Amino acid sequence: MRILEKLKGYEELRALPKELLPRLCEEVRELMVSVVEKNGGHLASSLGAVELVVSILRVFDPRKDRIIFDVGHQAYAYKILTDRLDRFPSLRLSGGLSGFPKRRESPFDHFDVGHSSTSISAALGYAKARDLLGQDHEVVAVIGDGALYNGLAMEALNNVKETNTRLTVLFNDNSMSISQPVGGLADYLARLGVNPYYKRFKEYVKEQCRKRQKGERIEDLLSRSKTRVKSLLQPNNIFEGLGISYWGPFDGHDMDEMVEILGLSRFYGQPLLVHLRTKKGKGYAPAEENPTLYHGISPRKADLGHSGQPEQGWSETISGAVTRLAENDDRIVCLTAAMKDGTKLNGFSKRWPNRCFDVGIAEGHLLTYAAGLAAGGLRPFVFIYSTFLQRAMDQLLHDIAMQDLPVVILADRAGLVGEDGETHHGLVDLCWGRVIPGLSLMAPRDAEEAEFMLAEAHRRGKPAMIRFPRGPAPRSLTPGQGRKPCGWGEAETLIEGTGDWAILAIGKTVPLALEIHALSRSMGLPEPTVVDLRFAEPADWDSIDLQLSKNRTVCVLEDGFLKGGFGEAVSARANETGAGSRVLRYGVPDRYIPHSTVEEQWQACGLVAGKILEGIRESL
Amino acid sequence: MRILEKLKGYEELRALPKELLPRLCEEVRELMVSVVEKNGGHLASSLGAVELVVSILRVFDPRKDRIIFDVGHQAYAYKILTDRLDRFPSLRLSGGLSGFPKRRESPFDHFDVGHSSTSISAALGYAKARDLLGQDHEVVAVIGDGALYNGLAMEALNNVKETNTRLTVLFNDNSMSISQPVGGLADYLARLGVNPYYKRFKEYVKEQCRKRQKGERIEDLLSRSKTRVKSLLQPNNIFEGLGISYWGPFDGHDMDEMVEILGLSRFYGQPLLVHLRTKKGKGYAPAEENPTLYHGISPRKADLGHSGQPEQGWSETISGAVTRLAENDDRIVCLTAAMKDGTKLNGFSKRWPNRCFDVGIAEGHLLTYAAGLAAGGLRPFVFIYSTFLQRAMDQLLHDIAMQDLPVVILADRAGLVGEDGETHHGLVDLCWGRVIPGLSLMAPRDAEEAEFMLAEAHRRGKPAMIRFPRGPAPRSLTPGQGRKPCGWGEAETLIEGTGDWAILAIGKTVPLALEIHALSRSMGLPEPTVVDLRFAEPADWDSIDLQLSKNRTVCVLEDGFLKGGFGEAVSARANETGAGSRVLRYGVPDRYIPHSTVEEQWQACGLVAGKILEGIRESL
Repeated sequence: MRILEKLKGYEELRALPKELLPRLCEEVRELMVSVVEKNGGHLASSLGAVELVVSILRVFDPRKDRIIFDVGHQAYAYKILTDRLDRFPSLRLSGGLSGFPKRRESPFDHFDVGHSSTSISAALGYAKARDLLGQDHEVVAVIGDGALYNGLAMEALNNVKETNTRLTVLFNDNSMSISQPVGGLADYLARLGVNPYYKRFKEYVKEQCRKRQKGERIEDLLSRSKTRVKSLLQPNNIFEGLGISYWGPFDGHDMDEMVEILGLSRFYGQPLLVHLRTKKGKGYAPAEENPTLYHGISPRKADLGHSGQPEQGWSETISGAVTRLAENDDRIVCLTAAMKDGTKLNGFSKRWPNRCFDVGIAEGHLLTYAAGLAAGGLRPFVFIYSTFLQRAMDQLLHDIAMQDLPVVILADRAGLVGEDGETHHGLVDLCWGRVIPGLSLMAPRDAEEAEFMLAEAHRRGKPAMIRFPRGPAPRSLTPGQGRKPCGWGEAETLIEGTGDWAILAIGKTVPLALEIHALSRSMGLPEPTVVDLRFAEPADWDSIDLQLSKNRTVCVLEDGFLKGGFGEAVSARANETGAGSRVLRYGVPDRYIPHSTVEEQWQACGLVAGKILEGIRESL
Repeated sequence: MRILEKLKGYEELRALPKELLPRLCEEVRELMVSVVEKNGGHLASSLGAVELVVSILRVFDPRKDRIIFDVGHQAYAYKILTDRLDRFPSLRLSGGLSGFPKRRESPFDHFDVGHSSTSISAALGYAKARDLLGQDHEVVAVIGDGALYNGLAMEALNNVKETNTRLTVLFNDNSMSISQPVGGLADYLARLGVNPYYKRFKEYVKEQCRKRQKGERIEDLLSRSKTRVKSLLQPNNIFEGLGISYWGPFDGHDMDEMVEILGLSRFYGQPLLVHLRTKKGKGYAPAEENPTLYHGISPRKADLGHSGQPEQGWSETISGAVTRLAENDDRIVCLTAAMKDGTKLNGFSKRWPNRCFDVGIAEGHLLTYAAGLAAGGLRPFVFIYSTFLQRAMDQLLHDIAMQDLPVVILADRAGLVGEDGETHHGLVDLCWGRVIPGLSLMAPRDAEEAEFMLAEAHRRGKPAMIRFPRGPAPRSLTPGQGRKPCGWGEAETLIEGTGDWAILAIGKTVPLALEIHALSRSMGLPEPTVVDLRFAEPADWDSIDLQLSKNRTVCVLEDGFLKGGFGEAVSARANETGAGSRVLRYGVPDRYIPHSTVEEQWQACGLVAGKILEGIRESL
């Protein structure tokens, strides 16, 4: 029987003889690998943080203390070891455990995450609340190196001194960010490791731990020797400069050391950052060798690298098309925020390393930097996930669109994204983006269309955003028609219907519209006209007006929130022009859609051909 | 005749004997003070940067080099001394000069700004574009201390090393941010000033300047003595740690020194930050004594402090109401991002200093910190300008609304804001905010209503946003009715009309609706029903449906963008329910509205009673 099964809750973990801890870690890793191979997930970071999580649970009490994991990629072991061992095989499945910490999932999850770099801000909030409410517990933020170099985390670090409270930041440094370390701070921290002072300090701390007499407070011990501690610390360390004591770096896989250090930290009584060096992918050879590939893996892709050529995804399609454009225009540069792999920029980057910029997890800077590049005469293409673009909406409005600069935003993973769940959907880019004056906003239905749009967006040299979903990109949904690009801002009528109804679709909902058409035909129902809107902005109002005036019923399909979506604009237009047709809107309702497969999420939102057809059948 | 008038362009400024420079600076200050007293503007920062701007123009060529001012509060002298002396009296007036750098205004303005902390990102972009395009010019970012401690600027600093280009950051440190210095980095930099090494370095640099032989490149000089320079610099300075050379601090009012140092910087060839100490409000006694008051001043308020009691503004109204709530609930805390004065939090802050947090210009952290405070058991009220909330929309969605945390966002300066112009309007908060599931969104029409809303939002303990405009708050628009609060999410019918039309208004457009009603009555036209929507979310669809079904014409008035606005939702609803009434939407059209008075901006958007009535008169 495994140790894991014998442990009844995290309390028993504390009592476990420390000789058994390595075996426990091994069992946790085995479980994680087997589940993630099946269900997909963020493997490499979680593998690297097993000893860290065990050490945290040996020292802190998650029922009382607040443990806040940044991003949540590192939290699988925490889920397993607190109260979710049995449910762990349901990770990322519909109705199962979330891939991220969720307060509604467990009393041991203290702050919901998904997007990067929120943990220090949240921990500061928890710590300040504790002080004002007269409570007494520890607050611990666990943050990776990629997340620490983000502006939000830096704002929080800058605010620690002013906040005048105590908290502990566990800096889980695997020197990887998501793909590779980026930025000056990463270099700086890498150099810290070779400073001999830290080794001496480590010894000193251990010594104090050993020498401590029963009942003696470590606080007193440390404060008695404060000068000595200070002198051991590197002068003018960045964190010390910000009023945060810095301890480290320590080995984030050495549980003896960590338990000692974390135990000490409990008594320190001041803002503290503990620097822990870990190895991303630790304990699982394929992930250790290729941590970037194993950062996040998709379900059924566990045999990644062994499988045949997969269907070309949207990311490859877009990066491929931009690469072809870049062959003929030296001004084209590509930018991403720590998502070079996710957005498939590797090819471009290898070919033109000096024209491809990964700024790290720094979406705000990403967009303003792009604005500067454009103002300086270049043509930036920004590769970013729709959900992370939410971090830079002001920069899109204020720095790019308002200045009418030629930046093309490529909003990847737009719409419902599946297993990553509510934090990662791209459901607002269309609603928020279409409001920004001067920004063109479009969504291609297939790869051919994407090429037209990219080429034309580039030719026009104005602010533009192209959104596309996660998953495979159809090569051509309307093959064999001697395809010519439509004009800028023009909708395209794909099928002239026989009935008194039309479907207006955009991007990924175009295949759904075609499916509804096919189904209505096979059911002997009146066939709808199918229009690919192509653009939310500039919208093709002539074409939309025509459908609104010709048809009794017009359906609008979009993979974004209905509220504030493009369907509202069409519906409002119908009222405004007195067109008389009834507009039915299909999209994502006004709530957060939890993790499951994309297909299940589309079903949950009623984005299913049969269901839609059934709903409007009687009115046809 | 003043020197200013004799200068034909900035080129002649270079040739001016340096003995005349102090007089020139005096003249620039006189002009700024006289214009800003009349027109309003950001006086204190611009006063502090006069010598800095003169020194920049003595060293750099703004026709070739790129000078990027952060925020733009410091740029008045630059406008005057490049090419806008004659037009300067039109500052912030309709059709006149913008209060901020604008590329369309002058070839010497290289990047449009308004929001904080974009300059280093933009400068990096310009610098990289220069390298890739094989150009050769200097790129200079001028950034204040408040702006530097923001996450966007820190992301840019972190990216400097990786970008591998040369740029110069002029760090204009008046140790003030907008009100007072906040954060660990401010403290850190304050300590740098007392480091004796810097004085020695200053002397060294000056000495090198003096000793330089004709034709000798300073680059060579410096690199020959690189070790010596290095050893003079404080080891492990934060900037040096990020791969950015740090020179300073120097006196930002000593033009001799600055010209020498900036001249040296041109030959340095590496990323460089020059730390300049300046005095906010310099040269104008009232502003020196009270720089916070003179940070931004409103037109006709130049006699601030001498005038009688002004009408109570929206900011006072809201902060006053929150203060009263806080008397009865210790859990209430107030937060702001460097806008304690602007949002009138001073009273609250003085009364409960431990319950009021100014995090500096750090809107992202502001909201996530609030989320943490709320998760920890407190009740945060976040005071933020609508336009700056754009910086934290992801945090509002991801950290507050998605976790259903009891945070109340007070979105000040919502709608058109007047003289600050396009960068500062709050036109998207309603469009973007209403899309976020779980966020209540409302706008009070008067002070009484604001109190009801605040009390109820607090009682409910859910994510809520209350938006209100710049300017005076009417005490009660519907006095003498024995006012009782409406229910949560309920609209309020203020006037039952006699005609076949209704006006739905919200927040600041309610007075406009009442005005239209009065005008229609006085003109003998059918009188509209006037409904105060109060809530955009949850919207009172029963009440809206009633008006849509009862009336032939329903007007929706809102002070935000029409596209994606609440009018679209009403219009869509009319279509959806088949109500048959025509919905006319009034608000801000799909373009950027330049600076002028708020009244002029409302006129430009057609938000005028007479015009609206005229437009629909025939259809009544």
